[in-house]
Amino acid sequence: MTTRTWYFSGGAPGDFAVTRIYTVAGEGLPIVTGLTVSQEPVKALDQRGFVLKGVVSNERYATRDEKSDLASVQQPIGRDSCRLGALIPIRKNSEWWNLSQDERRKIFEERSSHIAVGRRALPAVARRLHHCRDLETPQPFDFLTWFDFSPEDEAKFDDLLGALRSTEEWQYVEREVEVRVMRRQ
Amino acid sequence: MTTRTWYFSGGAPGDFAVTRIYTVAGEGLPIVTGLTVSQEPVKALDQRGFVLKGVVSNERYATRDEKSDLASVQQPIGRDSCRLGALIPIRKNSEWWNLSQDERRKIFEERSSHIAVGRRALPAVARRLHHCRDLETPQPFDFLTWFDFSPEDEAKFDDLLGALRSTEEWQYVEREVEVRVMRRQ
Repeated sequence: MTTRTWYFSGGAPGDFAVTRIYTVAGEGLPIVTGLTVSQEPVKALDQRGFVLKGVVSNERYATRDEKSDLASVQQPIGRDSCRLGALIPIRKNSEWWNLSQDERRKIFEERSSHIAVGRRALPAVARRLHHCRDLETPQPFDFLTWFDFSPEDEAKFDDLLGALRSTEEWQYVEREVEVRVMRRQ
Repeated sequence: MTTRTWYFSGGAPGDFAVTRIYTVAGEGLPIVTGLTVSQEPVKALDQRGFVLKGVVSNERYATRDEKSDLASVQQPIGRDSCRLGALIPIRKNSEWWNLSQDERRKIFEERSSHIAVGRRALPAVARRLHHCRDLETPQPFDFLTWFDFSPEDEAKFDDLLGALRSTEEWQYVEREVEVRVMRRQ
């Protein structure tokens, strides 16, 4: 059985130097200087660090047309040129999770254009979404999104974040932290 | 943080006597005589037993009208009269998981009437759905559904299973086991 589980270990000597940790909403995260991204738990972790984990899963909102369109342009994480990255853990409030599927879809796309806004940053910004609301051990966040992009495309990424944070969907975000990194090499 | 995680331990001396284990599709489960349902892992487990775990989560397909209608009639698990029960673990195939949200919804309800069929068994049959496809440790099933009902209502439950298994949605089920139990008392 191949695993879809990923670990983001802050405070581990790792592939990424942390350049900034910015608390957008709710409680922040410990300040660390390194981040390791792995599919196995990391042993040598700074005591004051953090470990966030999540699972890659099926899409919850995209229609066939949207899914096919995204698949035709999106790029995988890890291109050589993509030396900058960001881990953005998010938790939504209980009001969001008590909505029905059609209500969530309407807010997500018809009113907030989440997919359309993300589409504008493609193929420059690569993205991998991890779900953590339904792990067997309760987690502090619902989602972990991991992005990478080249230094030349950093402005596109900043625009993406600004656009999403101004949407109706983001009114349901009760905790969000932005961990910006640079690949060591 | 309250947990939404449940453990179904087959082979543990527990609240339920297993009356039948029936393999509907794919690989079966070990034959055991007892089942424990708990929110903590069970220690005293028969070596040849099994432990399945899953997490109660938000609905993935129901619309507002469907969700409100169900909420108005469904009953919680554990009514005194409900001495019979069933655990039904299911795994769907990769074709299902590669569909988009709108494609899955069309098969699930517009073409298979999953919610409408389940509605007919309410309030007699109580149901709790647990997700296990996105746990941090890979699981053998995608869902665990736990039902209970009174002996007088057993035929309604059998009808429900028969109706669901004849749907288009069930063509995507690659593993299914039915564990029927009776509450010890």
